[in-house]
Amino acid sequence: MSVPLFRRVALLGIGLIGSSLALAIRRHGLAGELVGFARTAKTRETARRLKLVDRVEESAAAAATGADLVVLATPLGAYAELAQAIEGSLAPGAIVTDVGSVKQAVIRDVGPYIPQGVHFIPGHPIAGTEHSGPEAGFAELFEKRWCILTPPPGTDEAALEKLKALWEGCGSHVQVMDAQHHDKVLAITSHLPHLIAYTIVGTATGLEESEKGEVVRYSAGGFRDFTRIAASDPVMWRDVFLNNREAVLEMLQRFTEDLTALQRAIRWGEGAVLEEHFRNTRAIRRGIIEAEQAGRFDPREPGEGKGS
Amino acid sequence: MSVPLFRRVALLGIGLIGSSLALAIRRHGLAGELVGFARTAKTRETARRLKLVDRVEESAAAAATGADLVVLATPLGAYAELAQAIEGSLAPGAIVTDVGSVKQAVIRDVGPYIPQGVHFIPGHPIAGTEHSGPEAGFAELFEKRWCILTPPPGTDEAALEKLKALWEGCGSHVQVMDAQHHDKVLAITSHLPHLIAYTIVGTATGLEESEKGEVVRYSAGGFRDFTRIAASDPVMWRDVFLNNREAVLEMLQRFTEDLTALQRAIRWGEGAVLEEHFRNTRAIRRGIIEAEQAGRFDPREPGEGKGS
Repeated sequence: MSVPLFRRVALLGIGLIGSSLALAIRRHGLAGELVGFARTAKTRETARRLKLVDRVEESAAAAATGADLVVLATPLGAYAELAQAIEGSLAPGAIVTDVGSVKQAVIRDVGPYIPQGVHFIPGHPIAGTEHSGPEAGFAELFEKRWCILTPPPGTDEAALEKLKALWEGCGSHVQVMDAQHHDKVLAITSHLPHLIAYTIVGTATGLEESEKGEVVRYSAGGFRDFTRIAASDPVMWRDVFLNNREAVLEMLQRFTEDLTALQRAIRWGEGAVLEEHFRNTRAIRRGIIEAEQAGRFDPREPGEGKGS
Repeated sequence: MSVPLFRRVALLGIGLIGSSLALAIRRHGLAGELVGFARTAKTRETARRLKLVDRVEESAAAAATGADLVVLATPLGAYAELAQAIEGSLAPGAIVTDVGSVKQAVIRDVGPYIPQGVHFIPGHPIAGTEHSGPEAGFAELFEKRWCILTPPPGTDEAALEKLKALWEGCGSHVQVMDAQHHDKVLAITSHLPHLIAYTIVGTATGLEESEKGEVVRYSAGGFRDFTRIAASDPVMWRDVFLNNREAVLEMLQRFTEDLTALQRAIRWGEGAVLEEHFRNTRAIRRGIIEAEQAGRFDPREPGEGKGS
């Protein structure tokens, strides 16, 4: 048998991503031992019952002790406290990474607690579902998905290669980029779409009772896609918006300007403005379809059944 | 062999909906004869080549002549002209209906041209895909989908029952409601989601070139769903917004207020406001999932793979 990539992996946080990562690491034999920690007794109990890891510890420090890879996988808002808790337990040469949707804030919150001689490489697998919690995990979640790593300047090359190998071992494509660039790109591809989906579903929730039932009934007209996105974990997304404030607010400003221009065109009956705008958006869609056909990412495409 | 529901059905407009309706009507034996008309020679040629109908006419009037059911299936903006063109050809006792996404405007534009003794019952199948044109049609499009009919006051009951039977014959669930109510409900379940999807994809299109490529690459984080919605037919959607202006602007106003409140919460770091909002939206999602499980509409659900 070959030697696993990591001797011991500690997962701090066992939600959708943490449990999926545990299952993927185990399936692909990437760790000699898997240790887990979760902040609530309930999640720790579930992790034990589902045998998601080899051992569940009652503290983050105990889980991190002796690990050569430590993965932060809680909502972003808990990172600073977690990092502080494990600071004294990190072994020299260990790698600390995470799976959060914002990367500059991770460097800000976790960076100060990383001891000399420990490698710190923030990461973000672009994968997920609208389900959350330890029972939602599955080993295939990261297959053919992008995982972005944002190593700070001066990061040890060997440590970076090892972390890349972990994600590639889970089936992901790995891309290395600057944390600031990551936060800007994700603000438009993920954070703003979620904010908008949450907003419109909330707007519908505020309708009169008689209309609300019909919103459910006729949701196939486009609304249903938004409800799925808006069913994602509330705490995780609260922390995303609190921690990528500037990039989200900038994209939101651009979006609002564009929406106002379309609103004006509707009010004044400017059909040509509307039609031109609606035609231009097709180019991006074509790019996505071409990228899928080129196999550059997962062609798993939500089904038909939208429209009118 | 049983007598078909309609002796001759005339389809005026052969795009996604028109061609799907032709295929469904034929499959279920709902018409003795299917006659088609399209405004462009190219579409008429395609309809002939694909044998979507028994006969393609060069004018709307010729297609409507002798039909006991006439279906308007062009974008909404062409209805008035079409209605005027067929006014003199409609047989007494014939039913005129349509498939447009707005219903008050149809009554306004088509109503004046309906002769005494002809039944006028606007309709709207809540079905579609992001594809358009006569080659995009398929017979199953309406199965387990809602179709809303908005008969004006005083509509003949027998004519309404016959039109209901047509849609039920195509596999749809039929709901009768007031045109104004329809336009308000669809403004939130369909029109506003499309407007927002078009907007955010447009916002991404306006990004710097280097970022645009990455928007495509990392679109699995939520953005991809929006691009699919924003790939819908530009002319059809232009006409929807021009013809349901008031209801769309009202829902847009509510949406903008809600978005501004969330924007403010992000700017001021009000995590509790965000979290509470994100939790509340789950109720609507649950309603949709329950409705699906109760079989009240199609459980065809886009796949996994969203998030973070």
